[in-house]
Amino acid sequence: MRLVQKRIQEAFDLISVDRIYRRIEQLGKIGGNSDGGVTRLAYSDAENEAFAYVRKLLSDEYVVEEDSVGNLFATRDPDTDRSIYTGSHLDTVFNGGRLDGALGVICSLEAVDAVYESDATVAYPPTLAMLRAEESARFGHHTVGSRASLGTLGVDAFSAVDQNGMPLWRAIQSAGFRPKNLSEPSTCSDRIAAFLEVHIEQGRKLEETDTDVGVVSSIRGTVRHRFTVTGDYDHSGATPMSLRRDALAAASDMIVTIQDIVEDAAMAGDIVGTVGRIDSKDGAINKVCGEVKFPLDLRSSNVEYRDTVESTIVDEIKRIADVREVTVESELIDRTMPVVLDTEIVSSLQSAAGSVETQYRRMPSGGGHDAMNFQEVGIPTGILFVPSIDGVSHHPDEQTTRKGIHDATRTLASTLIEYE
Amino acid sequence: MRLVQKRIQEAFDLISVDRIYRRIEQLGKIGGNSDGGVTRLAYSDAENEAFAYVRKLLSDEYVVEEDSVGNLFATRDPDTDRSIYTGSHLDTVFNGGRLDGALGVICSLEAVDAVYESDATVAYPPTLAMLRAEESARFGHHTVGSRASLGTLGVDAFSAVDQNGMPLWRAIQSAGFRPKNLSEPSTCSDRIAAFLEVHIEQGRKLEETDTDVGVVSSIRGTVRHRFTVTGDYDHSGATPMSLRRDALAAASDMIVTIQDIVEDAAMAGDIVGTVGRIDSKDGAINKVCGEVKFPLDLRSSNVEYRDTVESTIVDEIKRIADVREVTVESELIDRTMPVVLDTEIVSSLQSAAGSVETQYRRMPSGGGHDAMNFQEVGIPTGILFVPSIDGVSHHPDEQTTRKGIHDATRTLASTLIEYE
Repeated sequence: MRLVQKRIQEAFDLISVDRIYRRIEQLGKIGGNSDGGVTRLAYSDAENEAFAYVRKLLSDEYVVEEDSVGNLFATRDPDTDRSIYTGSHLDTVFNGGRLDGALGVICSLEAVDAVYESDATVAYPPTLAMLRAEESARFGHHTVGSRASLGTLGVDAFSAVDQNGMPLWRAIQSAGFRPKNLSEPSTCSDRIAAFLEVHIEQGRKLEETDTDVGVVSSIRGTVRHRFTVTGDYDHSGATPMSLRRDALAAASDMIVTIQDIVEDAAMAGDIVGTVGRIDSKDGAINKVCGEVKFPLDLRSSNVEYRDTVESTIVDEIKRIADVREVTVESELIDRTMPVVLDTEIVSSLQSAAGSVETQYRRMPSGGGHDAMNFQEVGIPTGILFVPSIDGVSHHPDEQTTRKGIHDATRTLASTLIEYE
Repeated sequence: MRLVQKRIQEAFDLISVDRIYRRIEQLGKIGGNSDGGVTRLAYSDAENEAFAYVRKLLSDEYVVEEDSVGNLFATRDPDTDRSIYTGSHLDTVFNGGRLDGALGVICSLEAVDAVYESDATVAYPPTLAMLRAEESARFGHHTVGSRASLGTLGVDAFSAVDQNGMPLWRAIQSAGFRPKNLSEPSTCSDRIAAFLEVHIEQGRKLEETDTDVGVVSSIRGTVRHRFTVTGDYDHSGATPMSLRRDALAAASDMIVTIQDIVEDAAMAGDIVGTVGRIDSKDGAINKVCGEVKFPLDLRSSNVEYRDTVESTIVDEIKRIADVREVTVESELIDRTMPVVLDTEIVSSLQSAAGSVETQYRRMPSGGGHDAMNFQEVGIPTGILFVPSIDGVSHHPDEQTTRKGIHDATRTLASTLIEYE
């Protein structure tokens, strides 16, 4: 045990936050925009270039496998049957930031390098995972690379098209890859003993609680509806209030009510709910609006609780439509189950975080990440969050803390060494 | 007096609703769209063609004056010093209906023809007025022709541009007219003893109360604000409810509150208030929205009452912004005074409506019309409304009732004869 501690300390000493920052800086130039943002869409030339950049950072000791959709897996111990995989993605949204995805890859590389350089004896020699096309910005489907690697990518995603009409499968081919049977893992997934990912939080919880590292316990499942409220278009000056069927007033009432329901529910359980946009069809300053659409995004790590809140919302929306004499139609867009991350991994990460003397907290993740796909096929999986300054994500202003990067990378390295 | 009654009856016998319908039908083909709608924008070829069509309907007894902005004034008694002018406009909004404007011109022509044909002795021989560019659809400025005819058109309107960047003044020139000094009436406005206009209601009040004719007592004045609500953009899944500054939830609360305030106020006085559109900037299903804009359109025939309601709304919006920790900015877009129509004309119209045994009601007008500009310079002015079926206006489905057209045209003819 004392030897292990010594090896961990050696690994820690090899970790350089300055190097991580430099690499993030370099990566940010690939697909970089003039305002500091990054556009590195799935299977674009910029994503290809980012993969090539990270590949060049690997020492000669690494053996690199490129799978049939372009994911890269790099290890110094290719002959081992079982390995802990750790990594993230290198694509971004339109005009996104430098950290979402890229930070996870670079921190994982730092930790994996440190583990190998420290000569620590490990149960599962680590493999760096660089995954393709995590963002849904280009094709409307998320975590393409990780799902393909596990054989869980659906044909719907494969045939989805970008805004120029190019299908995903053709974009993959254009990038130089030849995917075959989608239901078969594109890499040898049996080799994956566990999966660990570092990611920015994309929320404000860590910053608000002055915490450096988040140990994710679960990923919230999402249910999404699109509501269409229909009333009557009328002249704004000539139609008495009592004769109106105002779709925008009704939709506003619904949105306020949704907010009230979710705020109350959030005090008793894990839930967030959002109406993030609204469209007043043919709206004008001098007309009563006759049709309004808005989406609802409702997430919880507890599916029963989410179901209860969802049905309360749907009932209230119907009641408001009745009272205001408008009609409302609801379209279900998405319904995913929460993913509970492996309790043993979560304990290991907590214990590792404790040993590096960081401020950490156990927390649910609001957003989905590549890691959840590994947990979903039964691979023990963990996620470490670093703070998002001002909660900013998917935006050129993405930033985190130096201490968050330092502590998360050390927590990761420690777990790679100690996990059995 | 018995002779006058006889002449009025003669005039009534000359009025043909079938002819009015046929002419509306023909006019509807000028600028007509495949779905039955009409696009006859201000100073477009279609508007020019509509003016030419009505001009051809005039018998040789008419003397027609074309003024420097293209309004047409037609009378059989050009030498009289004082004349009652009656008419409306021939332009439409994008894909509007057949009745808004056109019906007023055709009903006025029918009544003016009937008065002259009946040989009634009248105090003020009538003049048919065909006015240009009433709709703001093309240049963003309303009632251009009537204001030019009175010397009250501002230079701001004159230099306003359409969506192709063409200024109003150039469009007027392209249609073949040469306006000069804007502050001088483009026609001899001293000759106008009174102005009368028939128009569709554009609301539901007549239909809901089973009334054929509305005698307008006043035109509501409008105050318009544009509100910008600013909060924070955040990840919808990762941001706890308690840490959000949701601009859309706040704006929705404001819109519901505006609706409540105006609905209450409408029970105690003349007021209507509308939020007819909303824009969630960069809104997305998976983001808390950080910026929302919406306009308020508030109208009343009582300016003190409107001021009171306006300040209640503004106070409540500020209070909601404070409670929800968002900021709100308000921009005043428009503030016009209500126009009270001439009481003597209103009485004449009511008495004429009574004598033709129509169901009529005295009512405020929600929308602005050419007529209001004549009242504003002190010319005694009246407006007759006919019902809008289902309240539809500015839409291909504009319709009214046969009885409304019949009774309004007879009321108009009777007033042209009897007004002294």
